Amino acid sequence: MKPETVDYGLYLVTDRGLSRGRPTIEVVAAAVRGGVTVVQLREKGAETRDFVKEALAVRRLLEARGIPLIVNDRIDVALAVSADGVHLGQKDMPIDMARKILGPDKIIGISAESVADAVAAEKAGADYLGVSPIYATPTKTDTVAALGLEGLRQIREAVDLPLVGIGGLNAGNAAEAIRHGADGIAVVSAIVSADDPETAARELSRIVAEAKVREM
Amino acid sequence: MKPETVDYGLYLVTDRGLSRGRPTIEVVAAAVRGGVTVVQLREKGAETRDFVKEALAVRRLLEARGIPLIVNDRIDVALAVSADGVHLGQKDMPIDMARKILGPDKIIGISAESVADAVAAEKAGADYLGVSPIYATPTKTDTVAALGLEGLRQIREAVDLPLVGIGGLNAGNAAEAIRHGADGIAVVSAIVSADDPETAARELSRIVAEAKVREM
Repeated sequence: MKPETVDYGLYLVTDRGLSRGRPTIEVVAAAVRGGVTVVQLREKGAETRDFVKEALAVRRLLEARGIPLIVNDRIDVALAVSADGVHLGQKDMPIDMARKILGPDKIIGISAESVADAVAAEKAGADYLGVSPIYATPTKTDTVAALGLEGLRQIREAVDLPLVGIGGLNAGNAAEAIRHGADGIAVVSAIVSADDPETAARELSRIVAEAKVREM
Repeated sequence: MKPETVDYGLYLVTDRGLSRGRPTIEVVAAAVRGGVTVVQLREKGAETRDFVKEALAVRRLLEARGIPLIVNDRIDVALAVSADGVHLGQKDMPIDMARKILGPDKIIGISAESVADAVAAEKAGADYLGVSPIYATPTKTDTVAALGLEGLRQIREAVDLPLVGIGGLNAGNAAEAIRHGADGIAVVSAIVSADDPETAARELSRIVAEAKVREM
């Protein structure tokens, strides 16, 4: 079942290569203790069997805490481990095909890099949007020019879906993303590359919560 | 629906990198004219969207001729294009998970590199086995030592499933693989790298057919 309401406030995207040699399951465990509200497991180069094994372990960790698990790109892996949903970029499976395979009860998030992407994804039945990149970032090398806060605000005005800002977000700029219309912020290196991922997540979680209170 | 009976006689495995710059759809079309009886689409490095697009095109080509389409590794892609089944290596999704996702009506082929692999796959509900590598080959760099014809015969004696031999097979040794118990031969470079994939497929098809007649 799709969770009734998902708190997209602090959305962790994993990256094995940026985790400084620490296993993803350990980084996720620390991030969960620190307060992340959604975890997206991203494994671009892994063998399917390894990806499934890791996803099962992360799934067990998260479900005990009621935190949704989103799998990047791989619908087969999401189905195999009964993840809560998938996140699809513009080079991943088209959303209409994905929805047919996953059914109505799984979360489908779509990467939107423009107002046009966002409107199309909403029309096609996306559950949330990853709005990217807010700022330029070394994590993703294949994305288009940064949207900036103004681009985020334009997408906020164009669609009703929950928006998760991603791209270069950290403790220094998370609050302004929330103030410009993001329901949450997604981070990769700000948590997975941190000296202490738990502390980093706790700090980001506090910043997001405070920015949201001010928004109300 | 799973085809009632599949003719595994000449099983093409695609490889973009070995196709000498020719698009996979063109190589498959030529191979089909030459007489391949099954096509496995393998795209290890492709973006999902590109893989789906190519698989749809190959699907259209094959279904008009009643030739099964098998997708390597990616169950999501197989579902998206309604392929006839998947082929799973020992590093891909475990067969029990794959069967749950695909249901009883899809073909699941498993790579077996030993009698133990073959027996386990049969027990787990595989529909056919890719027995590999019969001979050493530059196509797959991650497989174990070659089984040889004697290894093929041992697997033939151990299981009842259809067996497709793969690894270093070509017009010069296809017949002996059939004589040692293979129901068909799978080839990559012997077709995709051939000067003329259609002629290569036709020659292999004739050799397999003649070897099978002698077996009867």
